[in-house]
Amino acid sequence: MNLPTKVDIREVCLRDGLQIETPIPLSAKVAILEAIVATGVREVEATAFVSPSKVPALADAAELAEELRRFPDVEFSALVASPNGAKRAIAAGLRSIEYVVSASDAHSHANVGRTSAEATAQIADIVAIAADSGTSVEVIIATAWDCPFDGPTDPQRVLDIASAAVGSGVNRIAIADTIGTTTPRRVSSLIAQVRPLTGDLPLGAHFHNTRGAGLASAYAAVQSGVTRLDASVGGLGGCPFAPGASGNIATEDLVYMLRDSDIAVDIDLPAAILAARVAQEAVGHELPSALLRAGDRILN
Amino acid sequence: MNLPTKVDIREVCLRDGLQIETPIPLSAKVAILEAIVATGVREVEATAFVSPSKVPALADAAELAEELRRFPDVEFSALVASPNGAKRAIAAGLRSIEYVVSASDAHSHANVGRTSAEATAQIADIVAIAADSGTSVEVIIATAWDCPFDGPTDPQRVLDIASAAVGSGVNRIAIADTIGTTTPRRVSSLIAQVRPLTGDLPLGAHFHNTRGAGLASAYAAVQSGVTRLDASVGGLGGCPFAPGASGNIATEDLVYMLRDSDIAVDIDLPAAILAARVAQEAVGHELPSALLRAGDRILN
Repeated sequence: MNLPTKVDIREVCLRDGLQIETPIPLSAKVAILEAIVATGVREVEATAFVSPSKVPALADAAELAEELRRFPDVEFSALVASPNGAKRAIAAGLRSIEYVVSASDAHSHANVGRTSAEATAQIADIVAIAADSGTSVEVIIATAWDCPFDGPTDPQRVLDIASAAVGSGVNRIAIADTIGTTTPRRVSSLIAQVRPLTGDLPLGAHFHNTRGAGLASAYAAVQSGVTRLDASVGGLGGCPFAPGASGNIATEDLVYMLRDSDIAVDIDLPAAILAARVAQEAVGHELPSALLRAGDRILN
Repeated sequence: MNLPTKVDIREVCLRDGLQIETPIPLSAKVAILEAIVATGVREVEATAFVSPSKVPALADAAELAEELRRFPDVEFSALVASPNGAKRAIAAGLRSIEYVVSASDAHSHANVGRTSAEATAQIADIVAIAADSGTSVEVIIATAWDCPFDGPTDPQRVLDIASAAVGSGVNRIAIADTIGTTTPRRVSSLIAQVRPLTGDLPLGAHFHNTRGAGLASAYAAVQSGVTRLDASVGGLGGCPFAPGASGNIATEDLVYMLRDSDIAVDIDLPAAILAARVAQEAVGHELPSALLRAGDRILN
């Protein structure tokens, strides 16, 4: 078993965490932003440049981008779903964008009105748009294991997108368990197939804890060679169709597990628990994080 | 990576799950009992024969034992903490007992007023008491990774208890993360040390999800050669000192993960979710299980 000595955690509470919440004021987002920057995290997914009517919670993307300038030491990224979104993100000052491509056609259609192949074909356009400003591009392959409409995803679909992304010169690739259904064995299996294609490019993974196996999947990913993981303080990011369901894996729970595995992370655990409290206060309902309730273990 | 083809899950909601709850009527326990038997589970930890004043929720152990006779195809076990408890369990008709020995002295003292070595010395007495009635004995090594008072447990203390148990002729051994603090790397490490001592004896593990890594630890245990896991429907069994904290790993979440890993289990997933609802109703508060909220994934 080969564990890495370091894992990079990207904090995604401001985007994936807040995406399906009732919109909160910019001031509340800034309070969360300050709390997560105080954790020591080096990478933050701050917002998305997508349709404000489809995702009203992130309609203030450009305003929030202004606030990010106060923290020049943090790498902020924004999610985009089209070349136009990439242009808007870059115009707002973002220098790291994530382009999402769904591996399943039904999810891709529901999300962006294009087939998976059509969305894949746009990777090269996004890379070209980003190149002028020196913006880094990550391709996130969504519904990499399962689609809510099409069922289990054929791994070959994921491999095809990964190959296209590598061929287009993206900077990073990540695979995402969009609906929180995968488990460790399938994680290890898919990553073993993806890694030979991505070579030296950093490979990330994105898990939801919807069915309880989020941390188990994250650990399996790290065992399989993933060195980048997304997480959200408090586990913010539940599904609107499953009240009380867990959202993204909670940053503090992930930090606890990795620290206990002698894997270094940039995030301070007590500060992450504090940030989870700030996020919980901001959204006004209980968050599913375990550490938020139980606290760190007492180390005698 | 070697995964077993089958894992035996022992349902512990009636003992570990209810132990720290406000006592519920025998009729409510019978409703839970019927619901968990309907899952197809083969082994159920039904109660404990311990001090009724210390654990009032399980004071009806002998009455519940009468109810178990209705289900001759299920192996019911009871937890005991002394030779006297073993005698009471056997007199009540139990033919499978679990004797708990804390690996840390402070926890052992707090639980049973004896040092870990004193409790270990009684394994042989318990085995002798059980032998006359053909009762099987499992030694559960508690606080195997961390103690709430003494901090991290020296693995050698666990190995010493395991050796004594093997030498005394017990039928099974299990190691327990009593306070829900361990994580996969430490799980793999300890099991790798314990397994050479236990040889062909079935080795089990018992995890709590208090800090979110319960399923990750369970998967690591299975990867490391454990073939028996304890779980509780609904994740019943939270800590009274951490309101809302997760308890035992939830049976339905564990079944979901193992099934998705092509590991056979005796438990039917929809029936386990139903049993979790019955348990939630019986205790009258929300349980932390993920599947209870999100449901099984839709398999197209």
